Amino acid sequence: MNPVEVIKLKRNNFPLTKDQIKFFIKGYLTGDVTEYQMSAFLMAVYFNGMNDEETFHLTEIMLHSGEVIDLNFLNLPKVDKHSTGGVGDKTSLILAPLVAACGIAVPMISGRGLGHTGGTLDKLESIPGFNIHYSIEDFKRIISEIGVVMIGQTSELAPADKRIYGLRDVTATVECIPLITSSIMSKKLAEGADAIVFDVKIGNGANLPDKEKSIELAKKLISISKKFGKKAMAILTDMEQPLGKKIGNWLEVEECIEIMNGDIIPDLYKLSNVLAGAMIYLGGKAASLEEGEKIAGQKLMDKSAYNKFLEIVKIQNGDVKYIKDWANLKRAKFKKDILAEEDGFISEMIAMDFGFVSIELGCGRKKVDDKVDNLAGIILHKKAGNEIRKGDLICELFSESEAKLSAGEKRLEGAIKISKSKPKEVDLIIDILD
Amino acid sequence: MNPVEVIKLKRNNFPLTKDQIKFFIKGYLTGDVTEYQMSAFLMAVYFNGMNDEETFHLTEIMLHSGEVIDLNFLNLPKVDKHSTGGVGDKTSLILAPLVAACGIAVPMISGRGLGHTGGTLDKLESIPGFNIHYSIEDFKRIISEIGVVMIGQTSELAPADKRIYGLRDVTATVECIPLITSSIMSKKLAEGADAIVFDVKIGNGANLPDKEKSIELAKKLISISKKFGKKAMAILTDMEQPLGKKIGNWLEVEECIEIMNGDIIPDLYKLSNVLAGAMIYLGGKAASLEEGEKIAGQKLMDKSAYNKFLEIVKIQNGDVKYIKDWANLKRAKFKKDILAEEDGFISEMIAMDFGFVSIELGCGRKKVDDKVDNLAGIILHKKAGNEIRKGDLICELFSESEAKLSAGEKRLEGAIKISKSKPKEVDLIIDILD
Repeated sequence: MNPVEVIKLKRNNFPLTKDQIKFFIKGYLTGDVTEYQMSAFLMAVYFNGMNDEETFHLTEIMLHSGEVIDLNFLNLPKVDKHSTGGVGDKTSLILAPLVAACGIAVPMISGRGLGHTGGTLDKLESIPGFNIHYSIEDFKRIISEIGVVMIGQTSELAPADKRIYGLRDVTATVECIPLITSSIMSKKLAEGADAIVFDVKIGNGANLPDKEKSIELAKKLISISKKFGKKAMAILTDMEQPLGKKIGNWLEVEECIEIMNGDIIPDLYKLSNVLAGAMIYLGGKAASLEEGEKIAGQKLMDKSAYNKFLEIVKIQNGDVKYIKDWANLKRAKFKKDILAEEDGFISEMIAMDFGFVSIELGCGRKKVDDKVDNLAGIILHKKAGNEIRKGDLICELFSESEAKLSAGEKRLEGAIKISKSKPKEVDLIIDILD
Repeated sequence: MNPVEVIKLKRNNFPLTKDQIKFFIKGYLTGDVTEYQMSAFLMAVYFNGMNDEETFHLTEIMLHSGEVIDLNFLNLPKVDKHSTGGVGDKTSLILAPLVAACGIAVPMISGRGLGHTGGTLDKLESIPGFNIHYSIEDFKRIISEIGVVMIGQTSELAPADKRIYGLRDVTATVECIPLITSSIMSKKLAEGADAIVFDVKIGNGANLPDKEKSIELAKKLISISKKFGKKAMAILTDMEQPLGKKIGNWLEVEECIEIMNGDIIPDLYKLSNVLAGAMIYLGGKAASLEEGEKIAGQKLMDKSAYNKFLEIVKIQNGDVKYIKDWANLKRAKFKKDILAEEDGFISEMIAMDFGFVSIELGCGRKKVDDKVDNLAGIILHKKAGNEIRKGDLICELFSESEAKLSAGEKRLEGAIKISKSKPKEVDLIIDILD
């Protein structure tokens, strides 16, 4: 076997055997397969895909390129959630404490902002002192103490994925279902969960905007999860407009604190409730998704989720006082109000554009080593479907510098569409697959 | 513009502009585009192709990555031939002197053996002392003295092609029409010819075995030649069985000397005659292809070609006495006769297998720095279509070691097919395009 043969087989659309995939991925890690051979291979996979069998083998080899955490000592169901990423998508910060408060362990390993979408780690780090770097030993210790832990990817877990993902990013091979699937799954499987709920975003603000492809991805994630003996559900959700009413690192933490203190933000509440319901159901603490949702609603309203969130912040070295002070509205130095210029209805708030506006404001990175501003961001006072009158406040932009503020304002042009008649309502929950 | 954007455009099947192609190729040469980005790009081109406009720009940029030889000072028509490569394909050694003997300058830059196919340079180097390494100045001097020159690729000509070809070879992106076209054309255009005749092989022994693809390649070569203001013809020829009766470096030189001394080997004579006719016609020394063929036949028979060949050998430092001694049958140390095991007809002599047999015998390379044996090879005493009786000599294998001889004999298994009835005759010249 040699690397060129394997590339050629995939290029010619033959399914690869486990041995061929193993040879190629292991060879890449040892250096026998070069970067340029891997990138040619990835592009061939982009075009010809991989069937479930191949995707399973690829995932398994990437998973076992590093440590696989065993959490069986916990004697608890262990469930995690994965989102394909969106704008204003802060549900992880609600779900982790909420589901843990229902007696289900939540071992959560998250990522940073990617493209125009935000990242859970950047949000957590807007809490002063909050540490997301822990060893696997500490990860186990924290989850055994409070039933939940939220950290970043460590170099011990699925190192093959880290290298391959880095290469995909610079070779235009990101948007590829089997590669996305194996990347997500190799990391999720390494965490030690028994069940995974996937939030697969559809719409202009999703990382994979095409609806058919998103459905294909959802099915593949479920199918590969099951091949590994894991329970799984996928919720297909709308990402045509930002989720909730706040975008930005601390602003999103703040919005989660608000919701965990009883402020019902409709779309964010709805989505968090369905995802939590699914996690509770898969964790065996409810007989159905509906019962899971009901339990989730109770645990959110009785502040169990908020109290668990404070436990997370405390054990991970975050400043609990800073959290408790949330109602004090910490804001960035500079602000710009965006007002309605005419009467009508908001027909669209283009999620992708709002994502890029938030990057301009300082919430995210243009280059991999850019620093993010914790307080920068956007507060939406209106959402798609809302009626507006000329002069109404549609949204506020926040930034730590006037230059970033005006760059953000400029990027916002065209992101908000106004219509004369009331637009059709869009379903937030598009479909549920299992 | 950044490299990922260009890869993504090609991946998404958008035609690239001249500026985008230039940015990518120049970036590759300066190091701003990495090897792994180039290989991902090449694989995307493999799948989505390039239209004539894109192929023209790619060729032009590769051509101008190095020197372009100007031979206008010669005051002669300048015509070259390019073959896509076959087994026993030694026509260059006949065409160069033959066409030069007709008053047409032949600036010929050839390659080495590739895969299972032989290379003109390896054949020329089987002549003791024959030098194929010359500077561009010497190239010009030799062609101005004798009207023909046969050398290897120099680092001054189309260096972008050399690097890209090397990468294609190890990333399974060789068999791609626009990439093959730009690779061939950037080198041929750098030589300074006004017209080019392409011998495009079809069949199992061709480097591009698929017939439809070969026709597509032939058309693309002609179309790109014309875009550069060059005259061009493509002869589509059969490569299901080896060409002529000898395979191997010196053995093929010997066969060319035989034919230039009046021994008519039917298929080799036929193909050389058509190709030479086309070169003479495009060079303006005949009013039609047929007249060109007639002139070629005369110049071969009156030994003008042979005398010009001796001039080439002499000026390029080859041992002329060694050539003149050709009838003395220089042979490798070890020999194996392959005899017919039954009565019947030879229905197939699979060219690709014979190519690989010759590699085993020592004619070619398995690794890039392998040494080739000059006298190793195969003499065919029968060809497809011939009737045989049990015990007849079908072919002889020659090698410098017993191990290589038996490896060659083993590789020959299955390469010769016998049928009871006379097989259908195959046309050597499949089509002529211009």
